[in-house]
Amino acid sequence: MNKVINQMSAHRSIRAYTDQALSEQQIEEITTAARWASTSNHVQAYTVITIRNQEKKKRLAELAGGQSWVEQCPVFFVICVDYSRHKYASEKHQTTFDVGGAEQLLVGAVDAALVAQNMQLASESLGLGGVMIGGIRNQPEQVSELLQLPKYVFPLVGLTVGYPDQQIAQKPRLPQAAAVHQEVYASDQIAELTQYDQDMHDYYVTRTAGTRHSTWTEMMAAYTSVRKRAHIDQYLERQGFLQKD
Amino acid sequence: MNKVINQMSAHRSIRAYTDQALSEQQIEEITTAARWASTSNHVQAYTVITIRNQEKKKRLAELAGGQSWVEQCPVFFVICVDYSRHKYASEKHQTTFDVGGAEQLLVGAVDAALVAQNMQLASESLGLGGVMIGGIRNQPEQVSELLQLPKYVFPLVGLTVGYPDQQIAQKPRLPQAAAVHQEVYASDQIAELTQYDQDMHDYYVTRTAGTRHSTWTEMMAAYTSVRKRAHIDQYLERQGFLQKD
Repeated sequence: MNKVINQMSAHRSIRAYTDQALSEQQIEEITTAARWASTSNHVQAYTVITIRNQEKKKRLAELAGGQSWVEQCPVFFVICVDYSRHKYASEKHQTTFDVGGAEQLLVGAVDAALVAQNMQLASESLGLGGVMIGGIRNQPEQVSELLQLPKYVFPLVGLTVGYPDQQIAQKPRLPQAAAVHQEVYASDQIAELTQYDQDMHDYYVTRTAGTRHSTWTEMMAAYTSVRKRAHIDQYLERQGFLQKD
Repeated sequence: MNKVINQMSAHRSIRAYTDQALSEQQIEEITTAARWASTSNHVQAYTVITIRNQEKKKRLAELAGGQSWVEQCPVFFVICVDYSRHKYASEKHQTTFDVGGAEQLLVGAVDAALVAQNMQLASESLGLGGVMIGGIRNQPEQVSELLQLPKYVFPLVGLTVGYPDQQIAQKPRLPQAAAVHQEVYASDQIAELTQYDQDMHDYYVTRTAGTRHSTWTEMMAAYTSVRKRAHIDQYLERQGFLQKD
């Protein structure tokens, strides 16, 4: 296992940090490296907003649903899907402009997520750690106002970064045979999912001294039982995405 | 610059490969490492399909819009957004099931893209190279049939992997000041984009011996002038996403 693969395989979500600040050079290194990620048709439909202001982090922690690690981390990044530069380009060259289909949303989400993954991995390679924050989409209107996001931009995911102040176990992932298929989609994954339910159950029992007994399928059945963050559809439409026409 | 950041910063999209095959161990190492990527609420809403069959790669190359490198590469991965396991979980535990909002699409796209980025980086760390293939969404119905994708699954992005048989320059990325902002969104990026137009122009002039003169804003104005892959909206709806209700 080489250094890169080793780093990837050692990933843990870190939610507690020491007081040590990041240097300007570290922040620069993380964001510069991340920008070399692949991008669809060179659109680079993302923007990273670097947040160190304590008041702002506190507010974002609240907006993300009370995630104290967003306030506690020395640097919080908000990775946005961003087509506002493309809007500017279309005005400059007097063309029509349309990013209202699912395709443009997917392109932006993929571009931004590739950068986010690079940022997390680059951070970890520097001895830092953090956790991705989907809760940045909890109250997207308020986040947009706070970060002064223009139309054609929305916050996709947050990333806390700091020096780890906790040691935690890795949460088991889906078995290889469930997540990685050969040549065609493997329609029958019941054996793998039954095994995984057992793995997750054992993980929670060990980690909570027997108080939590959840299996993966139980948690997922609950998670997908109702439409999450249903307000985001209207928000995205106002920001210029998923136009109904 | 450490090994991981160095690897990231050296990224190039590789579209020509030697005849050398990948070993089983390499494929295993790439996909195993990738599965440690962060995932929203542990949903792991992705599946990777590993394709080595020559006829299938040929067909996928056609379906992706005639991208010969998909046929030529020894291994082609299709990274899918996948909620079919969650559908199974909801049936097992007799709950309702709804992944029809934009949120679930974004969660799936981010989860799958984080894994895709890890796969590309892991490949590169092994001396391999490749290119991500958004063209896998050109004809998603046919791709779904070929790969036997069930409902609640769709192909998000492809990834070719092989031993590089070309040496290419890095395509300049958006300037740091345009892509990475401080505390709030930087509304005025005109100076950076003007500089970037010049950088991309120079890159194309050098690379094409003066025959291509495109700037970034010109290319982007053309790219966003019409809605791309408009058929994908209906396809996604049939697969259980973006439900109109």
